[in-house]
Amino acid sequence: MDEQTLAKIEGRNPVLEALRAGRPIHKIMISKNAKGAVREIIALARAKNIPIQEVDPTFIQNLSEGKTSQGIIAMAAAKEYANLDDLLDIPEKRREEPFFVILDGIEDPQNLGSIVRTAEAAGVHGIILGKHRAAGLTEAVGKVSAGALEYLPVARVTNISQTIEVLQKKGVWVVGADPEGESMFHSPNRVNGAVALVIGSEGKGLTRLVKDKCDFILSLPMMGRIQSLNASAAAAVFIYETLRQRLQTSL
Amino acid sequence: MDEQTLAKIEGRNPVLEALRAGRPIHKIMISKNAKGAVREIIALARAKNIPIQEVDPTFIQNLSEGKTSQGIIAMAAAKEYANLDDLLDIPEKRREEPFFVILDGIEDPQNLGSIVRTAEAAGVHGIILGKHRAAGLTEAVGKVSAGALEYLPVARVTNISQTIEVLQKKGVWVVGADPEGESMFHSPNRVNGAVALVIGSEGKGLTRLVKDKCDFILSLPMMGRIQSLNASAAAAVFIYETLRQRLQTSL
Repeated sequence: MDEQTLAKIEGRNPVLEALRAGRPIHKIMISKNAKGAVREIIALARAKNIPIQEVDPTFIQNLSEGKTSQGIIAMAAAKEYANLDDLLDIPEKRREEPFFVILDGIEDPQNLGSIVRTAEAAGVHGIILGKHRAAGLTEAVGKVSAGALEYLPVARVTNISQTIEVLQKKGVWVVGADPEGESMFHSPNRVNGAVALVIGSEGKGLTRLVKDKCDFILSLPMMGRIQSLNASAAAAVFIYETLRQRLQTSL
Repeated sequence: MDEQTLAKIEGRNPVLEALRAGRPIHKIMISKNAKGAVREIIALARAKNIPIQEVDPTFIQNLSEGKTSQGIIAMAAAKEYANLDDLLDIPEKRREEPFFVILDGIEDPQNLGSIVRTAEAAGVHGIILGKHRAAGLTEAVGKVSAGALEYLPVARVTNISQTIEVLQKKGVWVVGADPEGESMFHSPNRVNGAVALVIGSEGKGLTRLVKDKCDFILSLPMMGRIQSLNASAAAAVFIYETLRQRLQTSL
C-alpha cells in the first residue's frame, strides 16, 4: 500500500465535506480513541461502501502532514470506483462478449498500474478489485497506467467469491490463473467466449476460496528454473493469450 | 540508470585491484581532470570491454561515499556478463532450437529484472544487451529477477546491429517487436523456429538501424485507447507467444 503517495484529507470537517461532495476516497483511517466523535463520518462512509480502518493514535500522528488530523485521515483516490452493475453492463452495451479481469489481492501499485494499462490495451471491459489487502486507485497507479486508468472502469467489491457467482449467473466463465492449473497453451478453447480472468496476489497467488469458485484454473508453462513471473508480467501473458483466442474465434 | 543502488568501488588502487581480480564491473566513471593518472585502468578496462564514462569532477564527488574516490569510481555488477560466443553455443549444447532475447536500450532496472525473470521462466537461452544507454546487471536487477539472473546468461555487446548479423549467419530469425509490424497473432509461424526477439526501449521502441536489420517486425494488437504496454509487460507477451508457437510446433 502506498499511503505516502496518496493525497490525504485530514481532520473531521474536511473528511466530512469530502464525503458529502462525493470525492473519490480509497479508505478512511480513524484513531482508536477518536471513534466516538466521528459517528457521522462512519455512517456516511458505510453508506458509500468506503473501508474504515481503526488504527493507533500514533499511526495517525505519523501520517498527518498538517498535524490537524483530529484522529482522522481520509485517503483520496485518483479516480472514482465504478459501480459493479454498471461495469457488468458494458459488454452488452457494446455488443461484445464480456471480458473482465478480477484481481484477488494485488498489493503493489506498480503492478496494478501496469495491469490496468495492459487490460485497457487488450480491450478488457473492466477490472474488479477486492477491497481488503489490495492496492487502490492512487495517483501512483494512474501514472504507471500511462493514462489507461482514465478509460478503464474499475469496481471494488467486498467479497470476490460472491462477485464470481454473480458473473457465473450471467453466463461468464470465470478462469483463475494459478500454477496448479492445466497449461493455458494446451487448453485453447477455455477463454474464447464470455470470460473473467482471476489473477492472484504477488506472493500468495489466488486465495483458496476464490480458486474453488473458478470454472477452470489455467497455468503458464514454466520451462526454466524460475517457477513464476512477476504479477504484472503474468497478467499480461494471461490477458493477451485470452485476446488471441478471442480474435481467433472471431476470424 | 540506478547509480545509487550499485556497489561502488572508489579510488585508483581499489579499482585497479578489482579489474585485475576479474570482478564483474558495469562501468567506470573517471573525472575529466583525473584522466592522466589512470592510464593503466583505462587500458585494462578497454581490454575487458568495460565502458568508461568521462564525467565532471563534481559528479564523482557527489557520487562518492567514502570521499576517497581520487576522481575514479567503478560500478560493480551483480553478475559477470557472459561471453557472446559462449551464449550463442548454448542451444546447440542442449540440442534445442535457439531462443534468444535482445534488448535494444531497456533503461529501467525494474523492467530489465522482470524481463530476465520472464525469459528464464520461458526457457530463453540467453539475453543480449546493448552497452550504451541501457540498464546493466545491478543488484536491483538481480533482486527484481527473483533469482533468475543467477541462471540466465546475459551478454553485452557494443553494436546490436552487428550481433543481429552474426545471429542471422547462424540461421536464427531475428524478429523485432514494434507497433509498425504485422500482428503477432495473425502471423502464427514467424517465431516457431530458431529465433531471437528484439525488444526496444521504454520510450522510443526499436532504433531505426536495428529495425532495418530484423527479418520481421511483429506487433501486439491494441484494442483500446492506450497504444502500448509497459516494456516488461510487452516483453512478457512476446516471449510467451513465442514459447506457445514453439510448443505447438513440437507437439
